[in-house]
Amino acid sequence: MLILVANLGSTSFKYKLLDVSGELTADVRPDDRVLARGAVERIGDAQGDGEPTSRCEVTIGDYHHVYEMPVPDHGIAVQSCLDQLTDPQHGCLKDASAVSAIGFKAVHGGRKSGTFLVDDDVLEAMAEMNAAAPAHNPPYIAAMKLLRDRFPNLPLVAAFETEFHDSIPEARRVYAIPPNWREDYQVQKWGFHGSSHRYVAERAAELLGRKDARIISCHLGGSNSLTAIQNGQSVMTTMGMTPQTGLPQNNRVGDFDPFALPLLMQRSGKTLEQLLAELASEGGIKGISERSGDLRDVELAAEDGDAKSQLALNVFVEEIRRHMGGMIVAMGGVDAIVFTAGIGENSDIVRSAVCKNLDSLGIQFDEERNQNHRGSSPPEGGNPGEGYLHAESSSTQIWVIPTNEEWIVAKRTKLALSH
Amino acid sequence: MLILVANLGSTSFKYKLLDVSGELTADVRPDDRVLARGAVERIGDAQGDGEPTSRCEVTIGDYHHVYEMPVPDHGIAVQSCLDQLTDPQHGCLKDASAVSAIGFKAVHGGRKSGTFLVDDDVLEAMAEMNAAAPAHNPPYIAAMKLLRDRFPNLPLVAAFETEFHDSIPEARRVYAIPPNWREDYQVQKWGFHGSSHRYVAERAAELLGRKDARIISCHLGGSNSLTAIQNGQSVMTTMGMTPQTGLPQNNRVGDFDPFALPLLMQRSGKTLEQLLAELASEGGIKGISERSGDLRDVELAAEDGDAKSQLALNVFVEEIRRHMGGMIVAMGGVDAIVFTAGIGENSDIVRSAVCKNLDSLGIQFDEERNQNHRGSSPPEGGNPGEGYLHAESSSTQIWVIPTNEEWIVAKRTKLALSH
Repeated sequence: MLILVANLGSTSFKYKLLDVSGELTADVRPDDRVLARGAVERIGDAQGDGEPTSRCEVTIGDYHHVYEMPVPDHGIAVQSCLDQLTDPQHGCLKDASAVSAIGFKAVHGGRKSGTFLVDDDVLEAMAEMNAAAPAHNPPYIAAMKLLRDRFPNLPLVAAFETEFHDSIPEARRVYAIPPNWREDYQVQKWGFHGSSHRYVAERAAELLGRKDARIISCHLGGSNSLTAIQNGQSVMTTMGMTPQTGLPQNNRVGDFDPFALPLLMQRSGKTLEQLLAELASEGGIKGISERSGDLRDVELAAEDGDAKSQLALNVFVEEIRRHMGGMIVAMGGVDAIVFTAGIGENSDIVRSAVCKNLDSLGIQFDEERNQNHRGSSPPEGGNPGEGYLHAESSSTQIWVIPTNEEWIVAKRTKLALSH
Repeated sequence: MLILVANLGSTSFKYKLLDVSGELTADVRPDDRVLARGAVERIGDAQGDGEPTSRCEVTIGDYHHVYEMPVPDHGIAVQSCLDQLTDPQHGCLKDASAVSAIGFKAVHGGRKSGTFLVDDDVLEAMAEMNAAAPAHNPPYIAAMKLLRDRFPNLPLVAAFETEFHDSIPEARRVYAIPPNWREDYQVQKWGFHGSSHRYVAERAAELLGRKDARIISCHLGGSNSLTAIQNGQSVMTTMGMTPQTGLPQNNRVGDFDPFALPLLMQRSGKTLEQLLAELASEGGIKGISERSGDLRDVELAAEDGDAKSQLALNVFVEEIRRHMGGMIVAMGGVDAIVFTAGIGENSDIVRSAVCKNLDSLGIQFDEERNQNHRGSSPPEGGNPGEGYLHAESSSTQIWVIPTNEEWIVAKRTKLALSH
């Protein structure tokens, strides 16, 4: 069974074609199941003058091809992808009908949390959450509608990022809000990055050799969240009603005091809309450092002595530690801390700072392993990029595990098709 | 030196007259220094018809007197208080001039964080923060102006609740907000309940016999906050820019996702003002339980099987534990957890739930001590209500210490007068 996993931006389309045939036991390596991958950028740019301005690329086995063509919408983008996949010379498919479904890493379905065939109700549920995920939901809805019309025989499946968190206990889901706000407007702590945290849960269980471990999954990248995992299930997470809360993000604020807003409106003369837009684009690492939302730039500047960059780095680390502590107490301890995504996989500075001074909690970090992690071989049975960073005497294991959200979306899509 | 410590509500005035003469070493018992205490309620009620509707009470030594009189404003309330204190038969003062100052437990001075003689600049700084503390700042400002006119020779001192938190490190103070919001609008994590947490810091150091302990002070009452204390100083706290954030309060929301607000406005048709007002009056324990903002009612209902009350209790406990965990990681461990204020001093249910299942962190709770705490004698050298709840083998000590905010305000006021 072949699933085309789609990751949409408002003007971009990234995809992987994954083979999820057969029983997907622990010895199946997800990387062996990638038949093709590709991306289309600047969708819609070509509509004015018809000039071919969209950059497209595709990789099928050893074949890598970059080309430009007019891509006025996401339908053309998918068509171009299918054309490449079925190309007689370089393609990997005889026919587009070999693709069983497109699986979407969809963000916020509110009342529809799970993995579902895209129908009117799913689209409606997503639309109800537009105001909570304005950067994500509207382009997904538009693209899904277009693709449904263009490819009526190709099932579209939405694997919502909230689904993995459906197991979080009630007492860690509700806000202390007025009665009925939860029922009427779906205001609760939903949590996101579900595909990534689920992948970490599955993979960590394999690497630790046990399914009952208490794990803190640290997804640190462009956007950031922590999830506490117990018996393979999410039991707590840092993002809330929207993907804006929790840890500071690259350019978004994270946790913030809503009661500061009336004062800000009064004193700055700005509207609520303006303030929230600034918090969602001029805050985060970028806001504090006054330099960049890319942590790599900020790390370099901090090393050069830039005080604001150092502060941004420190705030980021303090917030990770604060949320990590909450999860340690919630689970009564932690068996493994896992770092994943761009920053988690690559920043030895952040990993080291997050784990420092926790010996009294049984968390002993091996700084040498940390600094040598990049370029070192994974442990036996490990995938590229995987490795542990704890001292041998540490009660808590500390791992780097590269995430694989597409693999999870493909597997959830397969499951949804079987229902 | 005698200080009249004032705790103002919009229609109430509570006071204690405290003697802070001499050196205030550890062997001075604050309770021995209370010369009088009293309260005036329903201030302003009498203005319409002139009927004496304000209930006043005063206790001076063994003398306890309850009376009614017309109290149109806070000036009359203070005058009535001074009349009682200087009453030839029952009073404790020859002359009102024996009072060196009125010390106010003031809430939010923004840029003026500290203890200050009330002048135009202090009043202006408080006014700038009105929108961040709408229930607290306006009545304080009004009463201070009135008292300044009425008693021009009586120094007024504002001891701001944020002062104790001035020692919090930069990286735990800043929000990940756009540049200049902090400088221009004082948007940062200020923290409150400073007098209570400072009292706990001082008293815990005495009871533990060391000044360098890492302490988590849990102020749990009508409003709630946790503070991490290291070397006697606040290093982290749960409240932020306003006293609305952090833990759920009796009827206020605590931490909430501001990006939920546009969706709520759109879907409910309510204005931002309406929504924030509801979050600040219909949320918290009251909102979840749909019953009461008084935890005692909620505990009883939960015991009787009321599911929403049980949920409210569980959310409250989970949030305390979440923040407590953040502080344990921030300090790299904890030497003592202290419960104080109405709930902290009296709810064995909350204390037990907060401390459960933390053995692996070295926190061992003695349930028997907990349940027998009320009515038991304090340990040697302890004050009434003080006692410890940890097992003998626990690495972390767990204490109940009744708070004494007035004592702190009086001492800070004395200090401010000496400058």
